[in-house]
Amino acid sequence: MENKKVITAGIIIIGNEILSGRTKDINTSTLANWLNTLGIEVKEARTISDNEENIIDAVNLMKKKFDYIFTTGGIGPTHDDITAESISKAFKLEYGFHKEAYSILENYYKPGEFSEGRKKMAKMPTSAKLILNPTSGAPGFYVENVFCLPGVPSILQSMIGGLNNILIGGDPILNITINLRTVESEIAKSVTEIQNKNKEVEVGSYPFFKAGKLGVSIVIRSSNKTKLEKCNSEIIKFVESKNIEIIEKV
Amino acid sequence: MENKKVITAGIIIIGNEILSGRTKDINTSTLANWLNTLGIEVKEARTISDNEENIIDAVNLMKKKFDYIFTTGGIGPTHDDITAESISKAFKLEYGFHKEAYSILENYYKPGEFSEGRKKMAKMPTSAKLILNPTSGAPGFYVENVFCLPGVPSILQSMIGGLNNILIGGDPILNITINLRTVESEIAKSVTEIQNKNKEVEVGSYPFFKAGKLGVSIVIRSSNKTKLEKCNSEIIKFVESKNIEIIEKV
Repeated sequence: MENKKVITAGIIIIGNEILSGRTKDINTSTLANWLNTLGIEVKEARTISDNEENIIDAVNLMKKKFDYIFTTGGIGPTHDDITAESISKAFKLEYGFHKEAYSILENYYKPGEFSEGRKKMAKMPTSAKLILNPTSGAPGFYVENVFCLPGVPSILQSMIGGLNNILIGGDPILNITINLRTVESEIAKSVTEIQNKNKEVEVGSYPFFKAGKLGVSIVIRSSNKTKLEKCNSEIIKFVESKNIEIIEKV
Repeated sequence: MENKKVITAGIIIIGNEILSGRTKDINTSTLANWLNTLGIEVKEARTISDNEENIIDAVNLMKKKFDYIFTTGGIGPTHDDITAESISKAFKLEYGFHKEAYSILENYYKPGEFSEGRKKMAKMPTSAKLILNPTSGAPGFYVENVFCLPGVPSILQSMIGGLNNILIGGDPILNITINLRTVESEIAKSVTEIQNKNKEVEVGSYPFFKAGKLGVSIVIRSSNKTKLEKCNSEIIKFVESKNIEIIEKV
């Protein structure tokens, strides 16, 4: 990652349902895996409540800190969907019916079914650009580097592909996972040495319990394939020298 | 929630494995559900990378903002486990072997198996208080209002009960979920009216797709049982008046 600008992203999960414990967030993982393929690294994710001030504060702070910001949640038709209006305020932009969004929704619903509630989903910063929604009509939108997506995971998943040609990333971030039958404390010293010798590779160590047995996943990540493979070889060499069982390599 | 101090919490998830998309966070949900039973509301959750500066900044900022802070991750034996040292720096406390933690670990491991790597897990702010770990020995710890827990969900789950008598919460936060066979836009107006009439109850609306069918979960939350039930009755009354099917009530 040396001599190269790392392209960064921040995620803002807008949703009381995550903070109340009712729902487990899976959008961070979806977004991060997708962004990695585009060479964009997620540096921070924040989950905040459905509160205008919190949304404005988080957006204004994070949009300066990272190259791209993705928000999820709060763009539906109900009273607790306040993302679009909050983003308008954060950017000091007019909030109202977005012409193109309105027309998309008008065509999407049967005549007579384009109700007041549904019309609300066409309200956003009027100058925003749209993110099309192949699943359920209502588009997301983006303003400058802030991309606003829905919270429902399946809908979000269906929409992000539409941004592949809009986002400008770096080299894709590659990773290798080596699952070992060992415990962290057995390998800590050697893994530290390998990390210190391979500064451009991020080396992570994660214990797991599976089928009643302990193990450790060594995860190495880098956008430089040669350096990733060099680091991988060093790990394999060390593991074999210690007679540690390799469960699998992914 | 009127006339009553709301006890708040913030969560800091320390872990590159969440930001890389490799692992989905389930600790936020575990902590939030548990804290609700103690009358503590999670107001924000941040996922940050295994980076000392980020940890110190997040802890120093959030410990002032909320009554309690919970960190997860980064207290194991490997090079990427830097939470304990970072917390020491955040609080300007001595980092070193914690007498009681050292003795717990020394007893936990068989003679000769208390290796250097394992000894690292006894290093933390030397004046911290411990959070016992009934699963795998190595304790968590807390300093003032910052509670540091491991990232492995099953271990974290086994440890939090030990804090029930240490944390001071408010009235437990109660909730009712009403799953309806409808779409959000159909009920948006009425639900808004109900929210406006029931200011002390948080009313959330969440669309879902299950077995190929659309539905909406109305989730109402409050620490005031009477007000929660009044709000619930109003929702049921409205739903029945519109002939909307109630799929289930939890």
